[in-house]
Amino acid sequence: MKIIDAKVIVCSPGRNFVTLKLITDQGIYGLGDATLNGRELAVASYLQDHLLPCLIGRDPFQTEDIWQYFYKGSYWRRGPVTMSAIAAIDVALWDIKAKSLNVPLYQLLGGKSREKVLVYCHANGTDTAHTIEEVQKHVEMGYQAIRIQSGIPGIRSAYGVAGKGERYEPAGRGLLPKVTEWSTEKYLNFLPGLFAEVRKAFGDDLLLLHDAHHRLTPIEAARLGKELEPFKLFWLEDAVTAELQEGFRLIRKHTVTPLAVGEVFNSIYDCQQLITEQLIDYIRMTIVHGGGISPLLKLAHLAELYHVRTGFHGATDLSPVTMGTALHFDLAIHNFGIQEHMPHDETTESVFSHAYYFEDGFMYPGDVAGHGVDIDENLAEKYPYQPAYLPVNRKEDGTLFNW
Amino acid sequence: MKIIDAKVIVCSPGRNFVTLKLITDQGIYGLGDATLNGRELAVASYLQDHLLPCLIGRDPFQTEDIWQYFYKGSYWRRGPVTMSAIAAIDVALWDIKAKSLNVPLYQLLGGKSREKVLVYCHANGTDTAHTIEEVQKHVEMGYQAIRIQSGIPGIRSAYGVAGKGERYEPAGRGLLPKVTEWSTEKYLNFLPGLFAEVRKAFGDDLLLLHDAHHRLTPIEAARLGKELEPFKLFWLEDAVTAELQEGFRLIRKHTVTPLAVGEVFNSIYDCQQLITEQLIDYIRMTIVHGGGISPLLKLAHLAELYHVRTGFHGATDLSPVTMGTALHFDLAIHNFGIQEHMPHDETTESVFSHAYYFEDGFMYPGDVAGHGVDIDENLAEKYPYQPAYLPVNRKEDGTLFNW
Amino acid sequence: MKIIDAKVIVCSPGRNFVTLKLITDQGIYGLGDATLNGRELAVASYLQDHLLPCLIGRDPFQTEDIWQYFYKGSYWRRGPVTMSAIAAIDVALWDIKAKSLNVPLYQLLGGKSREKVLVYCHANGTDTAHTIEEVQKHVEMGYQAIRIQSGIPGIRSAYGVAGKGERYEPAGRGLLPKVTEWSTEKYLNFLPGLFAEVRKAFGDDLLLLHDAHHRLTPIEAARLGKELEPFKLFWLEDAVTAELQEGFRLIRKHTVTPLAVGEVFNSIYDCQQLITEQLIDYIRMTIVHGGGISPLLKLAHLAELYHVRTGFHGATDLSPVTMGTALHFDLAIHNFGIQEHMPHDETTESVFSHAYYFEDGFMYPGDVAGHGVDIDENLAEKYPYQPAYLPVNRKEDGTLFNW
Amino acid sequence: MKIIDAKVIVCSPGRNFVTLKLITDQGIYGLGDATLNGRELAVASYLQDHLLPCLIGRDPFQTEDIWQYFYKGSYWRRGPVTMSAIAAIDVALWDIKAKSLNVPLYQLLGGKSREKVLVYCHANGTDTAHTIEEVQKHVEMGYQAIRIQSGIPGIRSAYGVAGKGERYEPAGRGLLPKVTEWSTEKYLNFLPGLFAEVRKAFGDDLLLLHDAHHRLTPIEAARLGKELEPFKLFWLEDAVTAELQEGFRLIRKHTVTPLAVGEVFNSIYDCQQLITEQLIDYIRMTIVHGGGISPLLKLAHLAELYHVRTGFHGATDLSPVTMGTALHFDLAIHNFGIQEHMPHDETTESVFSHAYYFEDGFMYPGDVAGHGVDIDENLAEKYPYQPAYLPVNRKEDGTLFNW
Repeated sequence: MKIIDAKVIVCSPGRNFVTLKLITDQGIYGLGDATLNGRELAVASYLQDHLLPCLIGRDPFQTEDIWQYFYKGSYWRRGPVTMSAIAAIDVALWDIKAKSLNVPLYQLLGGKSREKVLVYCHANGTDTAHTIEEVQKHVEMGYQAIRIQSGIPGIRSAYGVAGKGERYEPAGRGLLPKVTEWSTEKYLNFLPGLFAEVRKAFGDDLLLLHDAHHRLTPIEAARLGKELEPFKLFWLEDAVTAELQEGFRLIRKHTVTPLAVGEVFNSIYDCQQLITEQLIDYIRMTIVHGGGISPLLKLAHLAELYHVRTGFHGATDLSPVTMGTALHFDLAIHNFGIQEHMPHDETTESVFSHAYYFEDGFMYPGDVAGHGVDIDENLAEKYPYQPAYLPVNRKEDGTLFNW
Repeated sequence: MKIIDAKVIVCSPGRNFVTLKLITDQGIYGLGDATLNGRELAVASYLQDHLLPCLIGRDPFQTEDIWQYFYKGSYWRRGPVTMSAIAAIDVALWDIKAKSLNVPLYQLLGGKSREKVLVYCHANGTDTAHTIEEVQKHVEMGYQAIRIQSGIPGIRSAYGVAGKGERYEPAGRGLLPKVTEWSTEKYLNFLPGLFAEVRKAFGDDLLLLHDAHHRLTPIEAARLGKELEPFKLFWLEDAVTAELQEGFRLIRKHTVTPLAVGEVFNSIYDCQQLITEQLIDYIRMTIVHGGGISPLLKLAHLAELYHVRTGFHGATDLSPVTMGTALHFDLAIHNFGIQEHMPHDETTESVFSHAYYFEDGFMYPGDVAGHGVDIDENLAEKYPYQPAYLPVNRKEDGTLFNW
Repeated sequence: MKIIDAKVIVCSPGRNFVTLKLITDQGIYGLGDATLNGRELAVASYLQDHLLPCLIGRDPFQTEDIWQYFYKGSYWRRGPVTMSAIAAIDVALWDIKAKSLNVPLYQLLGGKSREKVLVYCHANGTDTAHTIEEVQKHVEMGYQAIRIQSGIPGIRSAYGVAGKGERYEPAGRGLLPKVTEWSTEKYLNFLPGLFAEVRKAFGDDLLLLHDAHHRLTPIEAARLGKELEPFKLFWLEDAVTAELQEGFRLIRKHTVTPLAVGEVFNSIYDCQQLITEQLIDYIRMTIVHGGGISPLLKLAHLAELYHVRTGFHGATDLSPVTMGTALHFDLAIHNFGIQEHMPHDETTESVFSHAYYFEDGFMYPGDVAGHGVDIDENLAEKYPYQPAYLPVNRKEDGTLFNW
Repeated sequence: MKIIDAKVIVCSPGRNFVTLKLITDQGIYGLGDATLNGRELAVASYLQDHLLPCLIGRDPFQTEDIWQYFYKGSYWRRGPVTMSAIAAIDVALWDIKAKSLNVPLYQLLGGKSREKVLVYCHANGTDTAHTIEEVQKHVEMGYQAIRIQSGIPGIRSAYGVAGKGERYEPAGRGLLPKVTEWSTEKYLNFLPGLFAEVRKAFGDDLLLLHDAHHRLTPIEAARLGKELEPFKLFWLEDAVTAELQEGFRLIRKHTVTPLAVGEVFNSIYDCQQLITEQLIDYIRMTIVHGGGISPLLKLAHLAELYHVRTGFHGATDLSPVTMGTALHFDLAIHNFGIQEHMPHDETTESVFSHAYYFEDGFMYPGDVAGHGVDIDENLAEKYPYQPAYLPVNRKEDGTLFNW
């Protein structure tokens, strides 16, 4: 079997997605996601202009060699653009292999290790009362694990919260990024009270998560983790920026609140120290930004050795192709922890058909051959790319800060 | 697909082998090797009496769940007997999966990462002159990498050396182990001269290996490694016993001679420190004693991260089933280094047919579905189990020593 | 004196036991236990088929040389099957030596270091109230140290708990393992309340222990240890799986709850890092699974150096031979901590006669020559081996988990 | 002052370059280089499609805020594409600031710390004799420091060597990467002899460098470093791949040959461990791939603290804009070590005019305002982008290897 054609499809059904389609001489094709939120066209160019010509004529079953060809062959390795492009190829190849062998993707990754995939959703409120409403709504939808974010008194635009009645979508269309505002002090003073109220309303059994979104220093994160201990979080996410992996050592000395990190990582080397020093409990690197299934298997295997579980990022900025692929991965590997689930809107769903589905707090990848996600190219054409950005964030004095 | 039958075949065509056959309701069957040299019947019992009943009715595609079922489900984990039994099941399952999908096993492990598998053979002489003869013989057979062992003046029975004209086979039939003799001092004084002579005869391009067979202390190994540096070994194997992983730190401080270890390991935890501290260069754990393909993939992935390559043990104590499986593994993973090749005798070959073959210094797994090794059960019956042991080793004063 | 005969006795009086009998030319015989719960016949085969022939003619006083002969001579070292087989030989040899010198075993291990051996028992309830009843019952029996396990709301089958009115025995007869269910979240939410109630009922002086049975990650164990601090546990046992010894570092940073581990260990190398880094307080490796008296003395000596005490496993899966041997060991070594005591049922006791006895919360090895335990071989024959397994454990989503 | 326009100029005068031009409302403009060898258009897209709209209206003197805006504002940080794009902006801003203040760039970086910038050139020969010729030629040109690479007997296409009489340029035009071949064994056997000959011919005073180009494992690099010690290298470059920073620890134990690394790095976090553990002596990260002048100042400051000097990459894949900028940087910072100098060809030089010049083994940035490099946009248009790739590299058995 040979690859005879490859194309990059950029579309914006609700939000921007970059999709790779690899076509073989036997009519079987594979799909990969290459979406990098706010930097989509750079990845599209990386694929279209630099990688795809090298794929024509290659044997799609050589997943490892092709991955190394683009990773080592790039010379300038790593980084979100490079790795998202390579991921799209890798996922499309695995999709081809599974379709060609007529099995769901999870069968090639070790088979079923569980019946279903535990997911967590987002409950975002403008204040404590609204957040509790949102939690209630998601409990009623069947979710057993809920990430809680809330507007913070005195901060105009906190992370993760939409206007009341609006759907939350971090990336905003337009020619300039939105600027949000931040005060660590106000946040730290507010948060424990929020969790106290939520626990009071829902008891101890509901799994609660929270995302600090890279905005704390290690000692601040240590303080927060310690203050949240009575509320038994499933995890505290992105406590600090993680380029300095040893930054987590300090948090780890002070609190038993479990820690998750990694949605912005692109390489096992971004977290090798975090894992081998047991500084985190859940690794969130995604299949799309982490370079595909091949390297993520290596990462999951490293993590298993050190008691670290997966908890993959799953916001709307990953296309349904990545969500479907992740669910097969989640079902198969031993050290699965949890999967983020932020549902796509109807427009997105109309363009991407998929075998995966949600039921009673769990997700299922479905049992069709491959990863089970397809794209309607004609419909996709009706939603051309529209510039959009993630926000930038500034402290109250104007200092550029971590969004 | 379901497993409907399982049987353990113990036979002794030339030497003892324990083979597992798993049979599915679709007529496809898979073979796994469970041979543990000198302890064969204990593994056969472990499988027959304790594990096989649990397999009936299971889905053979669930390689990860079944592996964990027997590993975690054993409660008493690890060790050569336990892990060899689990390995036989794991390899048979992967064989079934590959046959059922009609692909050579390597396609499920990432596809081809190279065209062929570099192997090394053994040149064992009774003295320096004889060893050089043996090297010459193997060079003529096309080998590019040769492990050199020699009789040592003053030691009656050194490791790895047969009588002149005899085939070397470590395990000896009979009701008691052979007792060999050892003197570290004589060995250390002899070895550098042997390598000097071999390099003089064959030049610098031939890849040379040597096995110290666990008989040195760290400081002795450091001395040997240092003294062998002018002869540029491909590796020095089993320099010291390795239960104390940190024992390798001392060697590593003193010599740049590459180090290989692991043929007696059964678990990633037997070498996790050796690898993450970069104390070795080649990991030799086998698929059969290490618990199968599933855990060896995890090991290879860990090793890749730390610049450690594979160099799997491949003596005659591994059946052709393990040799075939290893060659698929070697072809597929990225960080393959070298594969040991000690050919089986004709009787063994008559019972085990296989797709793999040797050509010009390299081996090839062949391109049939599965791992490509089969057993002739009728013929196997003609070679019933015969008690056999690996030797024990004593120092000249009678102290029981590492064989 | 020479060994002239050796036999393996497999019987099932209440549960399965594997017993080794070594007979000398002077009529003295020694008994050793080789029971490996759920894998009994593999050990029996290891002994019968591979080791016993090597013992005939050997001098039974050479305990160290014979131990090394089987340990180093196995080539494939360590693991539960191998080490249990070697342990049976080692204990039988020590029994012969003590009988031959006509002294209780403890006299050869340093003599009495104390008058009596502190033991702890199990109080297992289906819920908090029932657990308190069980504690009361054991307090009345004179126990001063009690391990507490309880059914957990929402989990169908928690570890360590029988149905009300039933005797708890982990191994279940039958052809397949029982499958139990697990939720870490429910367990962690329940446990501190249980201990609060028990302390309220019994005050601070009763020694309380708890077994997490390998089911937590390091950070979860750290949280539990921290939350249990007000209840002053004697120890928290098997907090996490221990193949990754450095996994205990994280727990150790967060809590002063003392930690015990080791009932599944087989080698000093399974805990050398745990001890030298002072990551644990009690080592629980057993004489039977750890390879016998000879290596356990070395382990106890290492532990003494690092302030670690012994707390040997003593469930019904160790035969009275191991219990008797352990009590001599406990009485003799300096750094004894505590001994687990889970009494055998009457059928077991009818087959194994023993000098040891329980009185007022303590046990005594008795003062007969040797370890003081014997087997009634005729009666044993009436209880042939019956297949039995320890359970396997799955999380609520079906993931295979640590039992 | 405000930025009112921004444009990306992609041209190929001899080889591909991506140049950014930022234009202010005061008529002053700044130039930045965004060339990423073999991935040029992806960076062009990253700039054009995603970053440039955010620059319009910004105050160009806010170099730090704008850098943080694009680094933290990207959300998906690091990597060669992202950082090269940000670097182009940063360098153009510093160029504007220096021009606006009417000073050479070095004046804003601390002023002159030295009179001239020591550079090293390349002497690449097809064999030892030819390499010696090439060294001679460069000695005659006045170079005091020379990097030596040579063809290796038995390897068809070694790194860094052109055909005899050809100019060496790693990137090759065409639609597919060239595939080169590699044998570590042949390389290691050859190299010490090469250096012995060169030292014999030129004596001890000439500064000699060598680039292993990421192709060794740590132990192989340690061996090479040790064997090269008699030849007193200025540095051994890119001894191993550097994603695993701790990989350098092993080399550092065995040799005093100075080590340089970093031409593929993009972030201070790619070498923070290398520097703080003193694992290297020279840091080679470039201004263009490392994100610009602003982050490189921080890197140089960290390096100073740990006795590490700069030795910036300076191959033809960096445009004259980067070369000019680097020379100002080199002149100004305290811990400057050496600067690579691989001259551009005449076509490149015709499009990019520059103030910098070479004289007697040293370079000088020139004394015009800004960084002193300009682009002839009309001429650039005559050299449109042409697809070109760096090679990929395979071992003799076909394994994809580090180029």
